[in-house]
Amino acid sequence: MQVDVLDYINAGRDRFIADLREWLAIPSISGDPRYAGDVRRSAEWLAAHLKAQGFPTVEVWETPGLPAVFAEWPAEDPGAPAVVVYGHHDVQPVEPLSEWDTDPFTPVEKDGRLIARGASDDKGQVFFHTLGIRAGLATSGRQAPPVTIKLLVEGEEESGSVHFPDLLRTHRDRLACDAIVISDTTMWAADVPSMCTGMRGLTEAELTLRGPSSDLHSGSFGGAVPNPLHAMAAMLAALHDADGRVTLPGFYDGVVPLTAEERELFARLPFDEAAWLRTAGDSRAAYGEKGYTTLERVWARPTAEINGMWGGHTGPGGKTIVPREAHAKISFRLVAGQDPIKVQDAFKEWVAANTPVGVEAEVSVPGGGVRPCFSPIGSPGVQAARRAMGRAFGTEVLFTREGGSGPEADLADILGAPLVFVAVGLDDDRIHAANEKVEIALLLKGAETSAYLWEELADALR
Amino acid sequence: MQVDVLDYINAGRDRFIADLREWLAIPSISGDPRYAGDVRRSAEWLAAHLKAQGFPTVEVWETPGLPAVFAEWPAEDPGAPAVVVYGHHDVQPVEPLSEWDTDPFTPVEKDGRLIARGASDDKGQVFFHTLGIRAGLATSGRQAPPVTIKLLVEGEEESGSVHFPDLLRTHRDRLACDAIVISDTTMWAADVPSMCTGMRGLTEAELTLRGPSSDLHSGSFGGAVPNPLHAMAAMLAALHDADGRVTLPGFYDGVVPLTAEERELFARLPFDEAAWLRTAGDSRAAYGEKGYTTLERVWARPTAEINGMWGGHTGPGGKTIVPREAHAKISFRLVAGQDPIKVQDAFKEWVAANTPVGVEAEVSVPGGGVRPCFSPIGSPGVQAARRAMGRAFGTEVLFTREGGSGPEADLADILGAPLVFVAVGLDDDRIHAANEKVEIALLLKGAETSAYLWEELADALR
Repeated sequence: MQVDVLDYINAGRDRFIADLREWLAIPSISGDPRYAGDVRRSAEWLAAHLKAQGFPTVEVWETPGLPAVFAEWPAEDPGAPAVVVYGHHDVQPVEPLSEWDTDPFTPVEKDGRLIARGASDDKGQVFFHTLGIRAGLATSGRQAPPVTIKLLVEGEEESGSVHFPDLLRTHRDRLACDAIVISDTTMWAADVPSMCTGMRGLTEAELTLRGPSSDLHSGSFGGAVPNPLHAMAAMLAALHDADGRVTLPGFYDGVVPLTAEERELFARLPFDEAAWLRTAGDSRAAYGEKGYTTLERVWARPTAEINGMWGGHTGPGGKTIVPREAHAKISFRLVAGQDPIKVQDAFKEWVAANTPVGVEAEVSVPGGGVRPCFSPIGSPGVQAARRAMGRAFGTEVLFTREGGSGPEADLADILGAPLVFVAVGLDDDRIHAANEKVEIALLLKGAETSAYLWEELADALR
Repeated sequence: MQVDVLDYINAGRDRFIADLREWLAIPSISGDPRYAGDVRRSAEWLAAHLKAQGFPTVEVWETPGLPAVFAEWPAEDPGAPAVVVYGHHDVQPVEPLSEWDTDPFTPVEKDGRLIARGASDDKGQVFFHTLGIRAGLATSGRQAPPVTIKLLVEGEEESGSVHFPDLLRTHRDRLACDAIVISDTTMWAADVPSMCTGMRGLTEAELTLRGPSSDLHSGSFGGAVPNPLHAMAAMLAALHDADGRVTLPGFYDGVVPLTAEERELFARLPFDEAAWLRTAGDSRAAYGEKGYTTLERVWARPTAEINGMWGGHTGPGGKTIVPREAHAKISFRLVAGQDPIKVQDAFKEWVAANTPVGVEAEVSVPGGGVRPCFSPIGSPGVQAARRAMGRAFGTEVLFTREGGSGPEADLADILGAPLVFVAVGLDDDRIHAANEKVEIALLLKGAETSAYLWEELADALR
């Protein structure tokens, strides 16, 4: 008699947790050069582990920075679809250490949770696939999965994935695939399983406005020459209209609209706006683009946000000057259909067209930005993963999006395959903060989802 | 045969300059406590000098800070008008010393100029009255001037005249007068004698806008909660309308309009806007309230000026946040008919009425501000002084105003008498800067004006 997936996972639980704890003990902080050796050790540990789990091919891929791990388990059928599974083995810094109740790299199991840096983001979520894949094989009697699985575990995600696009381009042939499973996000709640279907992109700009060559006495000159701070206020005020829409010409061109189905599914999430406002630094009110709910605004609508603004006298006391300069840092969150470079260009053109007479404007943009990514809920991969997740959780799977993003758009664009988000983290996992944790029960649900996922994908993508 | 005024002044020139040099050698810097003894020495020197010049009453008036000098020369006719003459004997600091070509307190006579700190602002301008008064007496054969002259020479003007209003209130009876002659301003040019007819007042405010209790991640929250920097930009942009007028309700209520005659006289000043823009820090264009010239804007129209603005991330690089706070420092230049406290109240009400939902606003105001002062060109005192100045300069005297001000409004308000500005400084005297100078020929013209002034005032004010 064939073993049941759940029985297999339950039987493997202790070993699975013990192995994960070993990996979590390696402080693979990519943002701090002092831990570069640990990031490498983490890659090597994972490579050895994947080999032990049965992956026929396991390689450590070098970059000019920190290494990634690639592991491939080919399908028995050479014509079967291929699926890249993306995660990362590097972690965030842990400062301030005083806020941790236990050592961040001495994993502790308590009340059904595993507490350690990286437990949820992202080692735990990478790890459930190994148990899931083995469960799928053991319970189906197969020697190889029904799709070719290509696990790609990056080592620089928490430091900006700076070398990741080049790594993808270098290994584009080996990474050829029909879908990309991303396991680095969160679900709505432990009892409300959900899948992410898109992430906003980002582009930034700094605007400098120059007036007189030096600060002027406002008694002698005030009211008779342009004041760059007035110009800044006027320009930035004009960046939104009365409905909270961004006024850059062409900004919304091509934006993929929310479908009625998505909006209906978003609306079914048990969203408590008052509680959400509390998490938003006790914000006093929700505010944003007219015609959209709060969740739609943060997940599916582009924005222009002033992140910083300064000029003139900012110290104590008064100084009655017409200041020489004004500065602002502005960022744009982008959604499917928008391109960071086009938005940068639109901003530059808008600034040129809207700078008041007598003021000189300069726009600088740091890098190319992050492209948005999008995974339509009706796509075959998403539907397949939704079925797998539904089988594991025994309830309907809803949909979310995320307001920010990492290298997901690069994966989709460079590998030319659709994204499928499968993850079991929670928003209260305290990722990037002290006392990061993961719910062990959810890791096991993730493993169960993974056990079902490959067959569902094989059917859907064939 | 009676001596001619000009002959008397020319004969007294050398003694006059020698005495002034002695006074200028005392470093009476009121803004630096280390020089408090020197300010006192300056007051005592002046008191002794005035006594020697023949003033029957000379007193050093104490304040909680630095002393003033009061000297009275009663008219022969007890029914004659009384005139307060205001100036100050304290001076600005001299740093950076490296920018001075000669020692600031070792007066140097060169090319018809006297170079020293205080030469123009304001010791030289106080001093020309002593020569002028004596010239008037000597050439008229009188034993006492035709008006009672009450010279009041302050010792804290360069450090904000903090004790001056109280000093005026304390001695209000002794300072009772029919006009106040102010000798602490400038003329349009050496060959374009002019009189100031008003100074703008000032009031300041700091606006703080608060949103979330901490900076928020703009990926997670951007576009769905109010951003205090957006609110600040919108509010400050709305502080002016498209015509450059301030939008605070009631802001222009009671503003004394420019008369056609004043505008015509201002327009006759040889004003080179391109040259003025160069002095305005190479400003690229003149800009201000529609319907007014540049001179009218800085002299006779009230303004709202953003002096500083800050909030969010202002350091290097990007930080994609919704910031918790935004700040701005705003000052208002005020003209005749406006009251600093009323403008502060109007600003507070305007902020309360215009703060966007979800943002909390706080306005703080440092002190009560400076009231504007105004001296209508048609008033008897101004007309009398214009005649005296015209006789001395042999040409038509035009009118200017000043964009900022000192304690002039306090003098007018507390003593309840009209102001008359009589001064011979120039805008290029480098007051408050290194190498301050005064044109000796203009000091002598000032003395000549003073010689004629008392009779003109006696006729006009009687």
